[in-house]
Amino acid sequence: MPETLFRRLTLIGIGLIGSSIARVARERSDIAGEIVIHDCSPAALTRARALELGDRYDADAAAAVAGADAVILCAPVGAFAAIAEEIAGHLAPDAILSDVGSTKQSVLRDVGPLVPAGVHFVPAHPLAGTEHSGPDAGFSALFEGRWCLLTPPPGTDRAAVGRMAELWRRTGAMVEEMDAVHHDRVLAIVSHLPHLIAFTICGTADDLADETRQEVLQFAATGFRDFTRIAASDPTMWRDVFLNNREALLEMLARFLEDAQAMARAVRWGDGGYIEDKVNRGRKIRRNLIELKQA
Amino acid sequence: MPETLFRRLTLIGIGLIGSSIARVARERSDIAGEIVIHDCSPAALTRARALELGDRYDADAAAAVAGADAVILCAPVGAFAAIAEEIAGHLAPDAILSDVGSTKQSVLRDVGPLVPAGVHFVPAHPLAGTEHSGPDAGFSALFEGRWCLLTPPPGTDRAAVGRMAELWRRTGAMVEEMDAVHHDRVLAIVSHLPHLIAFTICGTADDLADETRQEVLQFAATGFRDFTRIAASDPTMWRDVFLNNREALLEMLARFLEDAQAMARAVRWGDGGYIEDKVNRGRKIRRNLIELKQA
Repeated sequence: MPETLFRRLTLIGIGLIGSSIARVARERSDIAGEIVIHDCSPAALTRARALELGDRYDADAAAAVAGADAVILCAPVGAFAAIAEEIAGHLAPDAILSDVGSTKQSVLRDVGPLVPAGVHFVPAHPLAGTEHSGPDAGFSALFEGRWCLLTPPPGTDRAAVGRMAELWRRTGAMVEEMDAVHHDRVLAIVSHLPHLIAFTICGTADDLADETRQEVLQFAATGFRDFTRIAASDPTMWRDVFLNNREALLEMLARFLEDAQAMARAVRWGDGGYIEDKVNRGRKIRRNLIELKQA
Repeated sequence: MPETLFRRLTLIGIGLIGSSIARVARERSDIAGEIVIHDCSPAALTRARALELGDRYDADAAAAVAGADAVILCAPVGAFAAIAEEIAGHLAPDAILSDVGSTKQSVLRDVGPLVPAGVHFVPAHPLAGTEHSGPDAGFSALFEGRWCLLTPPPGTDRAAVGRMAELWRRTGAMVEEMDAVHHDRVLAIVSHLPHLIAFTICGTADDLADETRQEVLQFAATGFRDFTRIAASDPTMWRDVFLNNREALLEMLARFLEDAQAMARAVRWGDGGYIEDKVNRGRKIRRNLIELKQA
């Protein structure tokens, strides 16, 4: 049986991702000897206790990280700077500080400078989630077969990177390392832009005249219904993601808007060949995803 | 046991929708005494025969409709004018002519004037589908619990409308009547615009630099993967839908693009309140859908 990775694992934030990590660590004995949970919401902390997600619960973040050899920030990325400020002086020497944020340049910018010498900073991003949030939303199979991207800054202790990679592999995830800048560009197109579009089209529908809006709900066919599922995600998390991946998101959005305008022009002028070409590219991408077993 | 609705039902086109109707009519004896199938593709017709979807197969559309008391056009809407031209003179007196097209004003425009006196024209649109196409893609449960919208022109024989409504109810669908103009506006936002957006973002991703594109495929997280599923639909069908619902689609697309630009502005200027408000509207719409059992 493999050795337990960490003596004490502290989770800062016990929402969908944090509570899923806690559940895996509960089910397997080889991730953490002890799980300490902090959340700035007293209600979430109470709920985590009721669900028995950890061994100890602490409303004080600094106290929660004391003595932990691994600390994972599982809060919305917009809160990371304040959290890092609060915990930095209390991290144990040689501890690993990680996170699960969806934007990695902002994490390097907000948390990086506050990491004390001797603490290993290994940012991570599990590409997993559902439209649900909170401690009840998590489940231990969430990461199975999904990617987890690590974006350690250059010079990070390789043993620390290896242990964090092993934690994610034990949750069932596939692990890859990536540069933070590149991560943010890739995520802008595969996740952030689709979410921005889904939120937007729900707003567009909600602005329609009352009668039409009622029928939009009644007759939500395949397309719109799928968008609403994406659009049901956590507002604070997504606000923070958009604001913390501004440049890459705006670039991808600008490209998309140009392409949508070109599509509008093809529809207006009856350019059927152009439209068919675009639909065929969609099919091709879908087929590639299926071959890669990502769909 | 209810009476069989039609003596002979002819399906013009045996793709996803046509072959699903055929399968339901095969499983139940109360829809049609005989099923006649035509498709302009010899391969599709051969496949329909191999799958035993009908009682008779005819490569000649005019011969296929002769003597049928119900004819349903299940081809892409762009082909309707030519098909109507071909079959109009061969429709039996008192027959019902229907279709399953996603755009209803175009069907009234293209088919309406060609319907002979004494033939009842009852356009229909089942709000059901998958990203697959062809005779193998159909299944008899496709319409269960889904809406089917009928858009008969004013003055249509009520008994004919009633029989077509009954056909759809026997497939498991819920039936509602709607004005064609209103249908096209509602479908533009719930289905046509989401598909246009999904095709577009796949193209945007496909245009990225080679390295990034590979990673888009590798790391397709929840958002993008869901868009590719929508984008995998039939190219000819969607080209025809876009070109035949031009006005409503362009209006909804213009509204959406304005809203997306406003979202871009909020991201650029860090207007977190605006973004949260949009995300919250998305959640609200999703909740409404769940209450209406459409999600």
